[in-house]
Order: sequence, then C-alpha cells, then structure tokens
Amino acid sequence: MAAIAPGGTIGILGGGQLGRMLAMAAAELGFKCHIYCPDAEAQAADVAARLTRAPYEDAVALAAFADSVDVVTYEFENVPAETARILSQHAPVRPAPRALAIAQDRLTEKTFLKEHGIATAPFAEVAVPADLDAALVRIGTPAILKTRRMGYDGKGQAKIARAEEAAAAWEAIGRLPAIVEGFVDFEREISVVVARGADGGTAAYDPVENLHTDHILARTYAPAALAPALADEARAIAARIVAELDYVGVMGVEMFLLPESAGASRLTVNEIAPRVHNSGHWTMDACAVSQFEQHIRAICGWPLGDPARHSDAVMTNLIGDAAAGWAAIAAEPGAKLHLYGKAEARPGRKMGHVNRLFPLGKRPPVTSR
Amino acid sequence: MAAIAPGGTIGILGGGQLGRMLAMAAAELGFKCHIYCPDAEAQAADVAARLTRAPYEDAVALAAFADSVDVVTYEFENVPAETARILSQHAPVRPAPRALAIAQDRLTEKTFLKEHGIATAPFAEVAVPADLDAALVRIGTPAILKTRRMGYDGKGQAKIARAEEAAAAWEAIGRLPAIVEGFVDFEREISVVVARGADGGTAAYDPVENLHTDHILARTYAPAALAPALADEARAIAARIVAELDYVGVMGVEMFLLPESAGASRLTVNEIAPRVHNSGHWTMDACAVSQFEQHIRAICGWPLGDPARHSDAVMTNLIGDAAAGWAAIAAEPGAKLHLYGKAEARPGRKMGHVNRLFPLGKRPPVTSR
Repeated sequence: MAAIAPGGTIGILGGGQLGRMLAMAAAELGFKCHIYCPDAEAQAADVAARLTRAPYEDAVALAAFADSVDVVTYEFENVPAETARILSQHAPVRPAPRALAIAQDRLTEKTFLKEHGIATAPFAEVAVPADLDAALVRIGTPAILKTRRMGYDGKGQAKIARAEEAAAAWEAIGRLPAIVEGFVDFEREISVVVARGADGGTAAYDPVENLHTDHILARTYAPAALAPALADEARAIAARIVAELDYVGVMGVEMFLLPESAGASRLTVNEIAPRVHNSGHWTMDACAVSQFEQHIRAICGWPLGDPARHSDAVMTNLIGDAAAGWAAIAAEPGAKLHLYGKAEARPGRKMGHVNRLFPLGKRPPVTSR
Repeated sequence: MAAIAPGGTIGILGGGQLGRMLAMAAAELGFKCHIYCPDAEAQAADVAARLTRAPYEDAVALAAFADSVDVVTYEFENVPAETARILSQHAPVRPAPRALAIAQDRLTEKTFLKEHGIATAPFAEVAVPADLDAALVRIGTPAILKTRRMGYDGKGQAKIARAEEAAAAWEAIGRLPAIVEGFVDFEREISVVVARGADGGTAAYDPVENLHTDHILARTYAPAALAPALADEARAIAARIVAELDYVGVMGVEMFLLPESAGASRLTVNEIAPRVHNSGHWTMDACAVSQFEQHIRAICGWPLGDPARHSDAVMTNLIGDAAAGWAAIAAEPGAKLHLYGKAEARPGRKMGHVNRLFPLGKRPPVTSR
C-alpha cells in the first residue's frame, strides 16, 4: 500500500492510556485521530480530533467510523472478531484481524508459537472439566489454569499447587474454556517490543527486564542486563514472531529467561501482545522514536524509526494511589512524569508512569522494591 | 497560590503549533486543555479536550472560557491588553498581563531592559515622521526602522542604509509608531529559554546558537559553543529579566554575541518573547522536561523541571515546502520529526521541525546551509 501522508486520519479502537499515547504520537507526525470507545470516560479523546462513543457491537457506528479514517488500529487485543471483520470492510485494519484472533486466545497463541518452533511453557487445553485431570497428568504440578480469553494483569488465572486443587481452580476462573500451563522456573522476566513495517522490515528495541507486583507490571529496566548474544536471540525471536504472523505494527513479546543450567536455549515466550506494550513505555523518553510513534509509522506504511536508545531508563508504573505522589516525582531531576488523565485512582488501576533517565550504561541495578 | 493538580484544566489562547505542543505537554501531566482561537483552522484543538472559536474581542466568550479553566496562558505575545484584562477577572493569567504589555511593544521592551542595566542595541522612538531624522542622527546609519508592535519573523522592519532612505522606510513599515535601532555588528545569534516558577525559582536551558534565513529561524544548534563563563552570563541575563518582570512561565531571550574585540560584555539582548520559543523546540527530544512542559509546570505552580540536556541536538525548521520531505526525514536514524497538522504549506509558513540528536559533546559544527 502507499504510505498515509501527514494530514491523514488514524482510527483508534479504545480510549484508554495506550490509545491516548498513540494519539499524541500520531499528532506529532501531523495526523488527526478518531477514537472509538464505548466508555463514558475516554482519556484518549482529550488528545484526539474526534470521538465516537458507541458499543463495539454497533455495526452502523463501526462502519461510519471506519469510513472516516485512513487506517484502523487498536489499543487492546480483545477486539471482538466480528468488530474487526466489519471494520476491515471499510478501512485497512492493522495489525490484521488474524494476528488479533491468534493473540487474544491463549490456546491459539501457544499453539501458533509451538508450531513455529518457538519455546513456550508446556500447556494443554481444558475445554471441559473432564479435561483437567488428564491435562494435569501431562503437565504436572504446580501448574496454572488460565482462561483462554480476556486475561490480563493476572486476571482469569488460578494456581494449582496439587492435583486436588483442580476443581477449586476451575471454579475460581469462572468455568471458562482454559488452558493448563506448566510452571516455568525462570531467572528473570524480560520483554522485547518489536515493530514490523508494511514492507516487512522489522525493528526491535533493546530487551528490558520487568518486575511485577501482584501480577501487574511494576517496573521496567532498560536495557536488561544480558550477554549480547542473548539479547540478540531475544530480538530474533520477537522478529520471527511478527514475520510468521505477517504482522504490521508494534508487538510486545514477554519472555522468561531460564537459569544457565537450562542449557542451550534459555528463552521461553510467555505471552505476546499485538499492540503497544507497558514494558515499552520507557522508549517515550529514552529513544528518538517511541513505541507509540513506531506503531503509527508501521500502520501508516512509513519507514520504521531507529530503535536505538540514547539513554538508559527505569520505568515505574504509577498504580492506584501512587499517582498521588506526582509532586515529589515532578521535583526529581532526570524524571519524566506521565499521567493518563484518569479521574479515579482505584487500586490496581494504571494512573501513569515515570521514566527515570540515566546516561548509557549507567542505569541502577534491578532491585525488588 | 496552591499548585493546580493533575485533572485541572489549562486555557490556552491561540491554536497554532505552540498551543498544540503546549496542549500535548499538559496532557502528559494529566491536565485537560481548552483552546481559545478565532481562526477556522486551529491545529491545537486536535489535541485538546475543548475548543472555543471566537474573536479575541468577544468579552462574553472570553469570560466563559476563563471561567471554565484553572489558569489561562497564551502562545503568542500580541494578546490585546483588553483581552488580557477581561480574562484576568475570571482566572489567573500567566505570564501576567504586565509582562505581555512590556514585551509586545519594542519601545517599552527596550526601555525596560535599559532601565535594568541590560545591554541592547541603541534605539530611539519614532512616533511621527518628524522624529525620524533626529533619531537617525542619534543612532547613526546603517539602522533598522521597526514597528513598535506586531513584528515577528522580520515583518514590520525596514533597513535604512543611509539617511536619505528614511522616508521610504517609513512608508515600507506602513507609517506606524516605530523605533529606530542601531545595527549590531554581532558574531553570532544565541538565545536562552528560561523559566520562572510561581515560587520565584528560575531554570534556564543551555544557550543555543540560531541561524536565520530570510529573518525566519532556520536552525538551532544545542548547545551553543560558548566558554562556560559566557554561557553562565547568558543564563544569568535571562534569569534577571524574568525576575525583574516577576514573570511566571517560559520566556525566550534572543541575544547577540559580539566579537571578542567588544571588550568586557559581549552579550546584547535583541528581543524577548514572553512564551515558549522556536529556539527551544530542541528540548522536546534532548531533555527529560521540554520547554512546553516547563511552561505548564510554571503556570500551574509546580516545581520547575531539570533543564539538563541528555543529548546534543540540531533543530531544523520545516518551512513551506520543506515539510514535503517528511518521508526522507522519517528514514533518518536519530531524527525526531514533528509536524504541526497544518493543511496548506504556504511559503514562509512553519509546518514542522526536526530534531536530530547526537551524544553529548558530539553535535556537528554550525554550517550556514
């Protein structure tokens, strides 16, 4: 396709913080944005030229929205398949509905990765309760039961320490189609934010190390402390995934780094997110081109930006009440505060983040708190 | 005053690129923006929560606008005094109307600087044609006749090489109240973007060197190559100006650097701009806190941000057709493109800019083209 020139309009499904940061990155390149969001509160709309407030099932509103834009993208992976289908009859949808369909279902995602020779945790399908015992025999315990769909930040998951806990876990996740995943005894959690352009070129930011608290990303250290060969391998895995999916846009690839004793391949893919990713927020202030601009470039058919970082960074999510500390953060030298404009600071809600910048090679060591 | 907390609303007079970049910086801190602009095209409105389209003389619209926001600021210095007066009855106006009044008139501006012992070019008032001959005798030729008000990018100026050209120059500037300024034989043009907080604290970015083409800023080199003592002196002059004005916000201070032969003081102030300044656009990508965020912090009573740069930068304005080169710029490593969303690329119109980043101490030398 021909590149979408500045002045064009980008349609974004979803009005939360990722849509908001995408909209600002698009505006910096001279684009207008049109947000589509069913929610009463849509932070992205405050920085966009236009808002359509309608349900994701409203075929008429979806068609009018897609007709008004040059390309449609989204800030979350749980876009209903029918929504994506309707939109794609009226405008290009990037990343394509196929990648969405694969990534929004843990079973198809893991099956896809396995079929392409990419290491994951062992897994087995649990369609009905009767599958559970057999799955646990295959996978062993401890294990995790996870709903196939709609899981994020630890939601829709239950740990199974011993086989006797299986029934309780099935109740806990709401008796939904699921998978059982084996525990991975990892050393560290890393991720790679990778982009693939419309021309098939890829560009990956440096792998980063992530710390979670209560299943929610707490901090990202950029870069991860990795031997160069391992960092290259992580980037290569991420690039292979987007290539195999014929993907256009930015993707977050979460990986586990296994201990050295694991042998030849120490990297296992935990999850892919077909969108800009929380572990890429550091790029906003430590790279010339952020992950948000990179995504806009990709879906508009532009050349991908240089993913090199000019600074090291530690990104800290401001979750719930943490955002109340804005004044102290604002007073810190070298800190860049980002707040999402959300009205209410509920526990576990991502209210903003802060990027603390350091000269190349000078980021502080990873600490657990 | 108490600081304005995230979630508050900032009113911005003017809908051009400076208002647009202010609005995005404000959104990054969790603020909403309300743009007031009489023009049909208002690029800032595409990234703001709200727009009022009304003339600057509409007292009712101004009052409603100011009532809807927590603070009013502006992207240009030619705000009519009556407009500022009406607004300030309904909301705090920052910077204060007094600084506006001084800076929007070349005579009061230069008189203010002179009274505070800050070096400027020699100048004399020309209220009526009869003043012109006497002024030229005092100032000498060559000189420049400049309208007192509404001049920018070389508009409202006429050169007087010899006294015989005085009448023609008076016609050329439209027979408006003016000043005659002596020529300054400078070595380089530099500028300092300085901020003053509500608490009286100041923070100045590194002085930069500016190259103009046809009286329009073409490129900014950050930092200017200056001996540390000279850079400190430039920052100190800028800080003194904002302090003497009891100013709150960001100000651009343009200076001439005289040749070494000039003796003790080599810095002369050319012009002050009571707003964010084109020669500060490099801070968007080379500092943790940009001049736009710095201005928002100041007018909201927040602590000022650290003005340290993490990278060197060369900022190039994209004027008129230059913005058509976006695809080539987008393909350059280390370049950050900014486009303002203007529909039509007229000659001399600022369409965007590009910041090219370099490691500290590694920016390329200043070249004239």
